[in-house]
Amino acid sequence: MKRHQLLFTPGPLTTSQTVKEAMLQDVGSRDHTFINAVKDIRNGLLQLAHVSKEEGYECIIMQGSGTFGIESVISSLVGKNDILLILANGAYGERIAKMSAIHQLTHHVVRFEEDEIVTPEATEKFLQEHPEVTHVACIHSETTTGLFNPITAIGSVCKKHKKVFIVDAMSSFGGVEMDMKKMNIDFLISSSNKCIEGVPGFAFSLCKKTELEKAKGQARSLSLDMYEQWAGLEANGQFRFTPPTLSLMAFRQALQELEEEGGVPAREKRYKTNKSVLDKGMAELGFKQYLRPEIQGHIITSFLYPDDPAFNFENFYNKLNSRGFVIYPGKLGKTDAFRIGNIGHLFPEDVKALITAVKEVMEEEGIAIALV
Amino acid sequence: MKRHQLLFTPGPLTTSQTVKEAMLQDVGSRDHTFINAVKDIRNGLLQLAHVSKEEGYECIIMQGSGTFGIESVISSLVGKNDILLILANGAYGERIAKMSAIHQLTHHVVRFEEDEIVTPEATEKFLQEHPEVTHVACIHSETTTGLFNPITAIGSVCKKHKKVFIVDAMSSFGGVEMDMKKMNIDFLISSSNKCIEGVPGFAFSLCKKTELEKAKGQARSLSLDMYEQWAGLEANGQFRFTPPTLSLMAFRQALQELEEEGGVPAREKRYKTNKSVLDKGMAELGFKQYLRPEIQGHIITSFLYPDDPAFNFENFYNKLNSRGFVIYPGKLGKTDAFRIGNIGHLFPEDVKALITAVKEVMEEEGIAIALV
Repeated sequence: MKRHQLLFTPGPLTTSQTVKEAMLQDVGSRDHTFINAVKDIRNGLLQLAHVSKEEGYECIIMQGSGTFGIESVISSLVGKNDILLILANGAYGERIAKMSAIHQLTHHVVRFEEDEIVTPEATEKFLQEHPEVTHVACIHSETTTGLFNPITAIGSVCKKHKKVFIVDAMSSFGGVEMDMKKMNIDFLISSSNKCIEGVPGFAFSLCKKTELEKAKGQARSLSLDMYEQWAGLEANGQFRFTPPTLSLMAFRQALQELEEEGGVPAREKRYKTNKSVLDKGMAELGFKQYLRPEIQGHIITSFLYPDDPAFNFENFYNKLNSRGFVIYPGKLGKTDAFRIGNIGHLFPEDVKALITAVKEVMEEEGIAIALV
Repeated sequence: MKRHQLLFTPGPLTTSQTVKEAMLQDVGSRDHTFINAVKDIRNGLLQLAHVSKEEGYECIIMQGSGTFGIESVISSLVGKNDILLILANGAYGERIAKMSAIHQLTHHVVRFEEDEIVTPEATEKFLQEHPEVTHVACIHSETTTGLFNPITAIGSVCKKHKKVFIVDAMSSFGGVEMDMKKMNIDFLISSSNKCIEGVPGFAFSLCKKTELEKAKGQARSLSLDMYEQWAGLEANGQFRFTPPTLSLMAFRQALQELEEEGGVPAREKRYKTNKSVLDKGMAELGFKQYLRPEIQGHIITSFLYPDDPAFNFENFYNKLNSRGFVIYPGKLGKTDAFRIGNIGHLFPEDVKALITAVKEVMEEEGIAIALV
């Protein structure tokens, strides 16, 4: 059996052995065992966001990647007479703009630099000037760079202007405490293979039922029809189309392990410890971060390529890989960088082991440890 | 650990333990290990259909269920000036009609009774009367009932009239020998959790490259853009959006096990044996089949409810379930029936065990064994 690798990526992530072992039993997609697991998952996810069905919130699970989940919300929710404002400072904001264009939604994009956050002030100004806007979409943790947008403050602006607020919390939900009511979030989307520490296969949306109901009959596709997906799940607990059964069984186990760890606060603490071990270790090796610390989140960090011609990313990546550490390439427009994630079933000792491996590879490759 | 259940369904299916165990290793979605697995899978699937890249055929993998795969083909391929003919004799043909309506494709539906096959004669007649049709879609194994449509004969008609032929081979591919060239199939769609005996998580399309290329820029959504999905995979072997990594690792193992079994001919033989054991055993218990044998396929069978007021499907289902056998409800418009599948990692002795359990349940419930 091949040696296990640790994934320091934005997902798919390292998961616990027990989460993976939950996939060792076949399960029928229309059978009670599975229907009960889906019910547990939908309720469990609402609880994590501090809301419930009784308070008028709903959970929809959508097959596919996180992007499928985002597209299901955007293309089902924004109607012909609606206008969507997209607040973008990275590839994932741009992705919402791209899908809005494909679906011919009336939309505006307010762009910020990749190394700057979306500001509540700019949002406020735009909404004052464009009262016709009905929906606002923003990324919470922009995986392009690793920054956190100030979702709470932007949510307050949306509430003041009575806009439906859609948050792509793909890589943050489960790793950052989020209260949908307090943060005025109407739609929150994330996926199975992020901070809940499940395996890939589906996305989920948590949302206000009164807004969800407006999506009826509006979807631009069959598969990604958010309303019908919800209505199907509500009718008999079953999916309209074949669900990734085993990914869901793994996810139920992951939710249970999250609870055992102490819930989102405990997980957030572990990820923050991972991040501080990473920051310290990489700084000692001379690596500089792309973002200034005030806007950097604790999910994933972009490191600039060292200013040494001996550094070759392919070699660096492959040598870390052969030592069992998978890092992630960069995605910045103009700057050469690579990324290291702190999320998944990773602990401070794993991050220390990564730092040791990085040091070894630098020595092997003759990359100078240039202290800042 | 819970006892294993055997799934006598149209999928998700029973899979081998080794297929499930292939999911016990985390893998990075942009890492070499995974990229190589995806490459093996794409080539392996083309081989199963007796075609290759060198001959101008391509394989696209799409996240989600089989329906996501069908919708990605239909909504990417049929352009504004194209006209699609859908040959429908069950829920899956109707599903293609539904997605065509949502995407506002110009389309015709020729409908047949649920217990009758699509005929080449009716197809020929329609195409003669409607030369403007550009694409023809048909289901191979209609899971609604279990019948096989005569794809080879319909393919010949399509070839004669120079139509692009799209085949939903969801529940047949891998369990029935299919040669795309000989059968004149331009697009063949199936999914991970059918006769290849993998776990759910994705669909795949095998297609003629010259036709695929016409789909560029035509897709009606971002996620289900078949052309861009293919272009992404070709560019660097990676998915545009997070793939179900572990479902793919399981699928690679499943393809290997299919080869070890003796390929599609050996698997087809096993499924046919399962089917004959099922037919005999159920007939002995007095169950009648919905379809006449000439059009019944060897994938899944619809059985009529016994004509005995003691029969209650819920009880019947639950009692079989508690014995470890998961069967499947019916989906017929007007007739009460349930379904039993022969596919997946099931062997004649498993089918015999199911028959024994059915007999026990009938005795327990006091259902008369009414011999025909």
